[in-house]
Amino acid sequence: MKPAVVLVSGGLDSATVLAAARADGFACHALSFAYGQRHAAELAAARSVAETLGAVEHRVVPIDLSAFGGSALTDLSLAVPEAPTAGIPITYVPARNTVFLALALAWAEVLGARDIFIGVNAVDYSGYPDCRPAFIDAFQQLANVATKAGVEGDAFRIHAPLLHLTKADIIRRGMQLGVDFSRTVSCYQADAAGRACGRCDSCRLRREGFGAAGVLDPTRYQ
Amino acid sequence: MKPAVVLVSGGLDSATVLAAARADGFACHALSFAYGQRHAAELAAARSVAETLGAVEHRVVPIDLSAFGGSALTDLSLAVPEAPTAGIPITYVPARNTVFLALALAWAEVLGARDIFIGVNAVDYSGYPDCRPAFIDAFQQLANVATKAGVEGDAFRIHAPLLHLTKADIIRRGMQLGVDFSRTVSCYQADAAGRACGRCDSCRLRREGFGAAGVLDPTRYQ
Repeated sequence: MKPAVVLVSGGLDSATVLAAARADGFACHALSFAYGQRHAAELAAARSVAETLGAVEHRVVPIDLSAFGGSALTDLSLAVPEAPTAGIPITYVPARNTVFLALALAWAEVLGARDIFIGVNAVDYSGYPDCRPAFIDAFQQLANVATKAGVEGDAFRIHAPLLHLTKADIIRRGMQLGVDFSRTVSCYQADAAGRACGRCDSCRLRREGFGAAGVLDPTRYQ
Repeated sequence: MKPAVVLVSGGLDSATVLAAARADGFACHALSFAYGQRHAAELAAARSVAETLGAVEHRVVPIDLSAFGGSALTDLSLAVPEAPTAGIPITYVPARNTVFLALALAWAEVLGARDIFIGVNAVDYSGYPDCRPAFIDAFQQLANVATKAGVEGDAFRIHAPLLHLTKADIIRRGMQLGVDFSRTVSCYQADAAGRACGRCDSCRLRREGFGAAGVLDPTRYQ
């Protein structure tokens, strides 16, 4: 089996991506970050997802983005919005996916993996710039000039298989692949037990997705 | 004064870049990484450089690339070569400058800085892919699709003012700017007191640079 690095956040999307990568025959090295997020429940969910979906290993790398601040997800003094806001919301974490993919690239090159999977989506999403096709394309280009492997012609591929799917499509695909969504946490402000607030943007997108897919929502709410 | 983020490693090149950015009128926020490098002397040098060259602040962010390994600079079981080698040498740290610039970008966006300085050089260098013009160009493109500021048209600029200079030119430029090179550490395997081995690729490039510039080499050797 070819090795791949799969970014696993503990949410619904990356769990589906991990299941898809494994179904495609990759030996999946799951990577998560303790980045100063508001709650640790998503890391517990990531661990559970990685185990149950057959990752060959799971690493949690500490990288404290809360030292920089600037986002409601890493700065407890900023409130998570509970109603839609105009433009890119304050839950945007500056350069988060750039940092995450950079570290995934570092690990991939050491492992000899040339495939990196990320669960970004540009349909039912919060409008973050680093979830769009232009970002994925630019990162793949960077990866292939930044690294020894890339320069030697052994190219990296950044896979974002959910990029153009609706949340309902993602949920249907995950169900087909056997993902247990009750193990995933999407909420921006889950409690310590992993129960969702039901009001933030991420909860709204998730709940509407289950509704549109006609699937019973297994989320545990507070 | 406009804010800028300046990557400061403790070496000769980034010290010169910090001095140049300050001479250009930027308020310099110096950024270093405790990334699992072989010796802490370069971080002590970075602190000294940041202080003496007037950075408004200096942060050292821990990001343990030695957890991934794969380089003689982060894996103590791999020896640092003391003679020239063919191709990209084993001192290459996978995706290091991608990781460093990603974190610089995160901090810059939070600070409201749009200028990021990095001391890479593609003339007298060890052949690392992430020190070349193509890498800097690709990262700048990425930065402007990855971030809220970039997408909103408030573009980031990645400055690499040493890219096309020889080591002798860099040393002359640093001298003009008042850099005290005795405070810098370039050696891949300096001892705890910051004294250089005199044999590794980085020592060789540095020593030849002082020779070619006709400047007395202030490096403390072991």
